[in-house]
Amino acid sequence: MLTQNQPKIDWKSIIKKFIAVLGEKGVVQRKEELITYECDGLTSYRQRPAVAVLPRTTEQVAEIVKICNQYSVPFIARGSGTGLSGGALPIEDSVLIVTSLMRQILSLDLENQCVVVQPGVINSWVTQAVSGSGFYYAPDPSSQIICSIGGNIAENSGGVHCLKYGVTTNHVLGLKLVLPDGAIVDVGGQIPETPGYDLTGVFVGSEGTLGIATEITLKILKTAESICVLLADFTSVDAAAESVSDIISAGIIPGGMEMMDNISINAVEDVVATNCYPRDAAAILLVEIDGLDVEVQVNKQRVEEICKRNGARNVTTAFDPETRLKLWKGRKAAFAAAGHISPDYYVQDGVIPRTKLPYVLQEIAALSQKFGYQIANVFHAGDGNLHPLILFDNSVAGELEKVEEVGGEILKLCVKVGGSISGEHGIGADKKCYMPDMFSDTDLDTMQWVRTVFNPQGLANPGKIFPTPRTCGEAAKSSQQYVNVDRF
Amino acid sequence: MLTQNQPKIDWKSIIKKFIAVLGEKGVVQRKEELITYECDGLTSYRQRPAVAVLPRTTEQVAEIVKICNQYSVPFIARGSGTGLSGGALPIEDSVLIVTSLMRQILSLDLENQCVVVQPGVINSWVTQAVSGSGFYYAPDPSSQIICSIGGNIAENSGGVHCLKYGVTTNHVLGLKLVLPDGAIVDVGGQIPETPGYDLTGVFVGSEGTLGIATEITLKILKTAESICVLLADFTSVDAAAESVSDIISAGIIPGGMEMMDNISINAVEDVVATNCYPRDAAAILLVEIDGLDVEVQVNKQRVEEICKRNGARNVTTAFDPETRLKLWKGRKAAFAAAGHISPDYYVQDGVIPRTKLPYVLQEIAALSQKFGYQIANVFHAGDGNLHPLILFDNSVAGELEKVEEVGGEILKLCVKVGGSISGEHGIGADKKCYMPDMFSDTDLDTMQWVRTVFNPQGLANPGKIFPTPRTCGEAAKSSQQYVNVDRF
Repeated sequence: MLTQNQPKIDWKSIIKKFIAVLGEKGVVQRKEELITYECDGLTSYRQRPAVAVLPRTTEQVAEIVKICNQYSVPFIARGSGTGLSGGALPIEDSVLIVTSLMRQILSLDLENQCVVVQPGVINSWVTQAVSGSGFYYAPDPSSQIICSIGGNIAENSGGVHCLKYGVTTNHVLGLKLVLPDGAIVDVGGQIPETPGYDLTGVFVGSEGTLGIATEITLKILKTAESICVLLADFTSVDAAAESVSDIISAGIIPGGMEMMDNISINAVEDVVATNCYPRDAAAILLVEIDGLDVEVQVNKQRVEEICKRNGARNVTTAFDPETRLKLWKGRKAAFAAAGHISPDYYVQDGVIPRTKLPYVLQEIAALSQKFGYQIANVFHAGDGNLHPLILFDNSVAGELEKVEEVGGEILKLCVKVGGSISGEHGIGADKKCYMPDMFSDTDLDTMQWVRTVFNPQGLANPGKIFPTPRTCGEAAKSSQQYVNVDRF
Repeated sequence: MLTQNQPKIDWKSIIKKFIAVLGEKGVVQRKEELITYECDGLTSYRQRPAVAVLPRTTEQVAEIVKICNQYSVPFIARGSGTGLSGGALPIEDSVLIVTSLMRQILSLDLENQCVVVQPGVINSWVTQAVSGSGFYYAPDPSSQIICSIGGNIAENSGGVHCLKYGVTTNHVLGLKLVLPDGAIVDVGGQIPETPGYDLTGVFVGSEGTLGIATEITLKILKTAESICVLLADFTSVDAAAESVSDIISAGIIPGGMEMMDNISINAVEDVVATNCYPRDAAAILLVEIDGLDVEVQVNKQRVEEICKRNGARNVTTAFDPETRLKLWKGRKAAFAAAGHISPDYYVQDGVIPRTKLPYVLQEIAALSQKFGYQIANVFHAGDGNLHPLILFDNSVAGELEKVEEVGGEILKLCVKVGGSISGEHGIGADKKCYMPDMFSDTDLDTMQWVRTVFNPQGLANPGKIFPTPRTCGEAAKSSQQYVNVDRF
């Protein structure tokens, strides 16, 4: 473990060794080039790494990690850098291991419904590679045309279709890993269950703190015979929320079930003009139903009835791909639209039991009033996975801190009703302060045991997930901690 | 860690302390009473524990574990003792912690589709408790009317309905655990994904080596609107196996898809006389389809067509519960029936990629010929989860060893085709020798890291999962190992 009194790091020797492994082109040293790597999707935190490396193979990753160990320098893995919790944020004097040259789909096994990919492969490429044969890869984060599978693994990413099919962890069969000491191991396999401890499950969502996945075996699913998208428009948020509960209670599990409130609706209509979303609606629900055609027809009918019973003014349905895409367009553009109607926005990610939706949305409205910020709600309603977008102006001094306070209040509300401080964006650097709101000291210590055993030197992505100091208000008691970025 | 030169254990003091926690009735000391506990469902291995205790609460379990730590005595958790891999097998001078008095269903939350149970609750009780409200608990081991949820968690149990709905780990939302040092922690929660490391996933299937689950939050599912069972009868095993592949390739995921060969068919007809299974069939498939009525009707038709295209002589279908039960009756009684037609049988549990079914069944037939034992095949065909039953006479000296050799050959065959040495019965004491066939030294070491960090003294269920000595042929290199039962 590094301490603050450590001797100066011999970067010259380290870089020489990196170049011996990767060649000159695989090692990024120039400060101007390193700017690209100083943050991920959570742009409010920035820190330039000392060096970035671009390996192409498992063995190269292992060599790089071994050199980091030899010189006791921390390393952070990074895919496309679209993460929203700062999971790929460098720290000072660290090595950024970038997987963007590891973009091969290594094998396709359609008969056994799995594919093996390198971590830099873009999420949507997996579906593209198998869609001609009638398959797809289910987890679909909003950033799916740019985010990488390695990052999805690190953050256990979700997406619209995770309501029915589960988040990333449910779709990972096996992993080849480079552990924090440079050892190469295989966990899981090509079949759903393997004996011994489920290390695949622990690794998914461990945000790079337990090592780096270099080959990933993913499950692919058969494309459904029929898909229908319903857009239901409500004059009250409560009615939309009640419909969500009622649909699930009726035993229907839609492929996806998303909700957008009035602010979000108007933002997307201002920016992308779908002309589908009624500007005067208090909320809309987008419900996608997939399966056999006969099944979709029946469930479409049932969802329509439930929405109408709860007071939906209108329910539009679409079976053809073009109209379906049109109905989804506004939802997919919602975050970007928020960026257009406000100088800045802060996206929160929390989970609540579905039945608590009406209450929690009322409380968020109360927080909006109390703190004086507009909050747009656009989220995975079926999973109870909220994404409140707090609109603000970052050029006004002190605003970010206040907005972060509102975000924290929302997370505490999620925990209070039995939910979680993250649904799919991870904890990263951003939310580690809130871990003690959700876990006891003993619970966190138990996770730290696992971290320590895999990552005894603390070199793999330090400063993420776990609060240091233990609670954010508490002063650091130990010098054996990385506190290299001022903000956290 | 105990060594073989350890001082004599002060059982008198230990038992006095146990009685202080549990009362006289909670501590079983008499040798005659302890006979019940000297093996689990794997009856070929037996070892009496020094004492058995019957706690009722989490706190009592924690107290017992702390006393075990204080005196450095190993402890083994046991539910109903139906496990087939010897996971609950005591070792000499050990404490057996029996959960059969921990049988409370602690809470039902139908709105959020989860229940909280104590570990001694019987698997089928969960469904019984919620079926009136239209729900059920999906994992259904054959032993479901007697096996306990705690044991299901330990072994990550499967069952007929795990093809569509996944094995136990997919249905556990959260756990209260007593760790091997007596600390009480909560992992997971009431929602599907929680941040930080997925310790729930690691714990499920860890066979009591990482601690004892004392409160278990399970997901329950809505009962399907319609269920249909099809019985297809084939004159060739290959044709049945091909049908399994074709059904899945067609994008149909049956609730369950089971296969029985001619030996199994005749065994069950001899013993339970279902009068449904044609005695001259080379194999039958039992396919259960669930979902909306319209969906079930369509998929029933498609499955029927696929089976007929592959040469099925006849396909019987049943929608009403009574006839469905009749069709399932023989399958459910298959293991018991094998016990009637042969003095003894040895059940193996391995997994193969579904597409390798025809090849592997031929190879098993070849092993049957080579070694001269009848092998009945009755198994979860849809998952590729084989259960070959090797019929033999244990009263003939040396037979068990030979049969175990055949069992081992089958496991090696499973690994060779990319499968696994266990589908749902666990590794326990029985299969740890085969772990090196499936995992490299580095892979096993990585699992051992996790074990060691949770279980540093090695007191929680020693001698399970991991081969000691490392490979079965190798001599023990360390005295710091429990090798208290001669057989392994």
